[in-house]
Amino acid sequence: MAGTVRTAVVGASGYIGVETLRLLHRHPGVTLIAITSERYAEKAVGEAFPALAGLFPGLVFRKLDPAALAEVELVFLALPHKESMEVVPDLRKAGKRVVDLSADYRLHDWRAYEEWYGVPHTSKELLAEAVYGLPELHRDAIMTAGLVAVPGCYPTGAILALAPLLAHRLIDEQGIIVDAKTGISGAGRKPDLPYPFPEANEGVTPYGVPRHRHLPEMEQELSALAGIPLAVSFVPHLTPMTRGILTTAYAPLHGPAEQAALLDLYREYYRGAPFVRVSAALPSTRNVLASNYCDVSVRVDPRTRRVIALSAIDNLVKGGAGQGVQDMNLMCGSEETLGLEGAPVFP
Amino acid sequence: MAGTVRTAVVGASGYIGVETLRLLHRHPGVTLIAITSERYAEKAVGEAFPALAGLFPGLVFRKLDPAALAEVELVFLALPHKESMEVVPDLRKAGKRVVDLSADYRLHDWRAYEEWYGVPHTSKELLAEAVYGLPELHRDAIMTAGLVAVPGCYPTGAILALAPLLAHRLIDEQGIIVDAKTGISGAGRKPDLPYPFPEANEGVTPYGVPRHRHLPEMEQELSALAGIPLAVSFVPHLTPMTRGILTTAYAPLHGPAEQAALLDLYREYYRGAPFVRVSAALPSTRNVLASNYCDVSVRVDPRTRRVIALSAIDNLVKGGAGQGVQDMNLMCGSEETLGLEGAPVFP
Amino acid sequence: MAGTVRTAVVGASGYIGVETLRLLHRHPGVTLIAITSERYAEKAVGEAFPALAGLFPGLVFRKLDPAALAEVELVFLALPHKESMEVVPDLRKAGKRVVDLSADYRLHDWRAYEEWYGVPHTSKELLAEAVYGLPELHRDAIMTAGLVAVPGCYPTGAILALAPLLAHRLIDEQGIIVDAKTGISGAGRKPDLPYPFPEANEGVTPYGVPRHRHLPEMEQELSALAGIPLAVSFVPHLTPMTRGILTTAYAPLHGPAEQAALLDLYREYYRGAPFVRVSAALPSTRNVLASNYCDVSVRVDPRTRRVIALSAIDNLVKGGAGQGVQDMNLMCGSEETLGLEGAPVFP
Amino acid sequence: MAGTVRTAVVGASGYIGVETLRLLHRHPGVTLIAITSERYAEKAVGEAFPALAGLFPGLVFRKLDPAALAEVELVFLALPHKESMEVVPDLRKAGKRVVDLSADYRLHDWRAYEEWYGVPHTSKELLAEAVYGLPELHRDAIMTAGLVAVPGCYPTGAILALAPLLAHRLIDEQGIIVDAKTGISGAGRKPDLPYPFPEANEGVTPYGVPRHRHLPEMEQELSALAGIPLAVSFVPHLTPMTRGILTTAYAPLHGPAEQAALLDLYREYYRGAPFVRVSAALPSTRNVLASNYCDVSVRVDPRTRRVIALSAIDNLVKGGAGQGVQDMNLMCGSEETLGLEGAPVFP
Repeated sequence: MAGTVRTAVVGASGYIGVETLRLLHRHPGVTLIAITSERYAEKAVGEAFPALAGLFPGLVFRKLDPAALAEVELVFLALPHKESMEVVPDLRKAGKRVVDLSADYRLHDWRAYEEWYGVPHTSKELLAEAVYGLPELHRDAIMTAGLVAVPGCYPTGAILALAPLLAHRLIDEQGIIVDAKTGISGAGRKPDLPYPFPEANEGVTPYGVPRHRHLPEMEQELSALAGIPLAVSFVPHLTPMTRGILTTAYAPLHGPAEQAALLDLYREYYRGAPFVRVSAALPSTRNVLASNYCDVSVRVDPRTRRVIALSAIDNLVKGGAGQGVQDMNLMCGSEETLGLEGAPVFP
Repeated sequence: MAGTVRTAVVGASGYIGVETLRLLHRHPGVTLIAITSERYAEKAVGEAFPALAGLFPGLVFRKLDPAALAEVELVFLALPHKESMEVVPDLRKAGKRVVDLSADYRLHDWRAYEEWYGVPHTSKELLAEAVYGLPELHRDAIMTAGLVAVPGCYPTGAILALAPLLAHRLIDEQGIIVDAKTGISGAGRKPDLPYPFPEANEGVTPYGVPRHRHLPEMEQELSALAGIPLAVSFVPHLTPMTRGILTTAYAPLHGPAEQAALLDLYREYYRGAPFVRVSAALPSTRNVLASNYCDVSVRVDPRTRRVIALSAIDNLVKGGAGQGVQDMNLMCGSEETLGLEGAPVFP
Repeated sequence: MAGTVRTAVVGASGYIGVETLRLLHRHPGVTLIAITSERYAEKAVGEAFPALAGLFPGLVFRKLDPAALAEVELVFLALPHKESMEVVPDLRKAGKRVVDLSADYRLHDWRAYEEWYGVPHTSKELLAEAVYGLPELHRDAIMTAGLVAVPGCYPTGAILALAPLLAHRLIDEQGIIVDAKTGISGAGRKPDLPYPFPEANEGVTPYGVPRHRHLPEMEQELSALAGIPLAVSFVPHLTPMTRGILTTAYAPLHGPAEQAALLDLYREYYRGAPFVRVSAALPSTRNVLASNYCDVSVRVDPRTRRVIALSAIDNLVKGGAGQGVQDMNLMCGSEETLGLEGAPVFP
Repeated sequence: MAGTVRTAVVGASGYIGVETLRLLHRHPGVTLIAITSERYAEKAVGEAFPALAGLFPGLVFRKLDPAALAEVELVFLALPHKESMEVVPDLRKAGKRVVDLSADYRLHDWRAYEEWYGVPHTSKELLAEAVYGLPELHRDAIMTAGLVAVPGCYPTGAILALAPLLAHRLIDEQGIIVDAKTGISGAGRKPDLPYPFPEANEGVTPYGVPRHRHLPEMEQELSALAGIPLAVSFVPHLTPMTRGILTTAYAPLHGPAEQAALLDLYREYYRGAPFVRVSAALPSTRNVLASNYCDVSVRVDPRTRRVIALSAIDNLVKGGAGQGVQDMNLMCGSEETLGLEGAPVFP
């Protein structure tokens, strides 16, 4: 398999980790040579995840061990925040390129990290080199990056919904409200209450109000787009589905705007972004399931002079593992869409 | 069964209608003597709805016929909008009291009705006597009303979340945003796409943006509370559950506010409202299922100087049939909670 | 509240326990004076279960303590198996009547218990007095019992589907196959894998094949009906819903049988059983949700000379807490249906 | 795209049809040159199915018209039964190879077809050449076939679960019981009751008892395996999920059998079948979602001397469109797995 990138997935037993495995299976640009998991150490992939039985012959979970990664060129880190920054410095010293799916390198300002995550940042020196892995905003920087911080699921949905409006200075930057609805897999693979089926089912449940940890990340990127620091009101909700995030963002318009013109502006903004589908029709998580697409639409509310920008993603794909693979493709000079061409699963 | 009210349910084959039957079963203040349905005419209740088999011995659906209602004192109308105003005038002339679950008498201004519903209002003369059946706002008027218009499901959730803030002039009235998430039963008993299970499942789908028909109703009541006309941005979303509406409302605060003080103010406002439960904990549709409760909470977002007001209801109970029964209790001088004491179904 | 039974619910923090609370709320024959839970000790009901906020003013969970039960006449035990038999002997010595929702007193033969549950039975002396709490089979014995063992959820569905066939000697007793489909709440309130929503959703998953613990209980009662010892094949399946058990039972017919005659025989058999609804229509869990009904039907398969008997229950009501309340009503000389009149929740 | 097969999908607006589109997207052996649909005639794919927007540039639904198929070599028919046999004869005369996803050519005996489907068979002359498209049983015949009848979803699950037992004469052929649980998409894209989300949700509902149309097909294939005519008892159930069929089959064993030996026998039987995964672990629909896998297991019940054989498939993939693509691959001399390598979606 000459020409492929020797890759490892570290922390592959959570939902984002196992989704990375799903996407790397048959990815033509990758040779997957190591996977790690404390929980499943010494188990074959199919033992840990019967869904993946037979797909990775010979591949066995190991405990994380630098030796096992000696031959690896690029590492996906699917660890919880805080654990990521404990291993990234050594990986970088050893010359590995890193796609980090945790929150540890997303915020440029370590003070913001420490404020919102409540722990000291122990790898500040790498923040300057880390690139925020949203290809639609930072494609060029990702291509040459050694360390990419894959965006959080909520920020991905919110930024892609709002970016064209801010880039074109069409809205009041201080008036943004982001209301998001996520599938339960967004809570991670935690067997805690309130995530058992009977208690999650038939429940739409807000949480993290008004200080969810994805806020500073959202504000960092939206502020950069707007050219001034801005603050957002954000409320995430658990909804009874497995996957998906629907983001509904509201903002006051600076002036009159026409629906059709806004859609054109969105289409222009996302020209060249293969995974953003702009449409006059309202997006639904139903239409992006298991794919890397972000469906986006925008509506004018003339009665209140507000704009409503909406997006739908699969939180585990474009909101996580898929975006990480998209980043890897760019880092490796591959086609951005390589291995991500799968159509959404409908119904 | 002396002392009970002779009642009929007209149009009992939709979700709101059948839920009315469920709640009237064993209601100690009611004798149910007639039910109508075009679809199920001449069928026993249990034939049409096996869930209700055995509960209403002898009761058979009939086509709507004034003669069948001759003995009735109070009528629940669970008809689609437009059909309701075709029968209400005669019912009122015949001296029946009416609890109308449709939209036809909710708006005081027939021009607003015609604008939003796209049909002529054919019963304008009764709009003046119709009372908006939200007991938490209009308890006294309901008690003596001949015609009560039961509020829509979305307005119920939004108004109860926001009323204390407007009544106390704490927020910018023109800055209100209402984001609501409903179970699929809210779409009615329509066997149309996109409501089949496979297409509704795993889908969070906004609709009716930016002009859902529940908007003028919401604005009518919120304006009355605020003392000035106001406009609201409103986005409803279908979510993959059967019942429930979670409402998340955002508004700019006039000045600094404290969480605890706001909660006290809410508790005070809803003192005497047996179905509103104010809590510091965030509400969830999971906790009100099949009950008439409206769970309410409120949070301050000091970073953006906004307030976030949240409510959870069962759209078919407090958002429909249950509220109708609550109205009937008040109209008949019964205890407001009569027949509605059932605890929420959890899990 | 003179004339009511002073009651306690012990172990009220599981799904069966909290469902017992839901059903006892407003039960006119009961005064609930104590509830226990290790997990929620010293918490008010509404703190532990926001769904029940406001319904039990003043009632606080306590750790299990004999003193707290001094005034109690009848105790619901919603403890795991093994824990129940640790407390029942003392309760009985103190003269309390006991409705035990665990498995500890369901099997008459302690050897069977020890074989299937893998622990010593430490309360053998009470097995003789324990009554199997299925009112449709043992109504009279329940009325005078001091200790009632409420049947398991699967046995309830299977026995009620098959009883008339066995009682009338219509089927080959050794040829019975029971295939059952349960909602996830049947697994208990365990925050373990595979019960988180994302992994239970979209999954129909058999388990416990071929030795589920409910088998000896099913066989004990079916054997008694048949008059000879019989063995059953039983496969339970987790299905992605919160509540409900649909049981499909198959058996070879001794001779020709007619659909209509079998239905008549079922109707006759269950005359006087207020919660069994026999119908020619196939049952669905959808139609019994949150109610104590067991819907039953039966079909002849002339091509294979088999009969197919089907039932639907809510596993937490007729399969647990509701059946316990039904037992309590009988024990206390109340109307069998008291407090259980609530109509199924549809949809 | 030299070397690819020029293909059309006829009747592409149902769930099986749109799933065929999903699987053909990027299939390296196919050029999709025409799609037909009455409902969506003249609409682009993405207009009809927003999930597929952008994936088939230029492809537009047309009404079925022989001219449009002139250049096509192989046709997928995703029409309802009865409509298929109206178009197949002309397609065959024109030299097209046909993969028929309907029931019209599955039964070798037209009398059985007429009995079970209640309509005359109008294309009897083609029954002799039609091959039952289950590659695990008929691989060689499929490779050279001009007309392949893709098996029904239930028969696929049942046959693959039972084949090794019958082929090895291990069970009583007349004692087979098949209990199947399907996702709601199995009912087709019908906006009828009882398929709206609110009525399908929380419902496990048997139907078609005791004469579901998939029975003769199951019996035809199982009889061939057994070498004698046999009859099966079969009960399908709707369960609240979008996709998946879990099949639980029961049969009396001729003699003693050991679990491990049976599993070996299954593994041997399915050696060379790339989509059948035999495991000691019980299968779950959760583990095959959106993939062409059939997970199979088998358990001995020594107490009753029965064997329990279980399988899980995605009804729209291995139970429909995926199996059709697998057939096409074989017909065209491609690798059997081509275009079907996608890993199951988990969670």
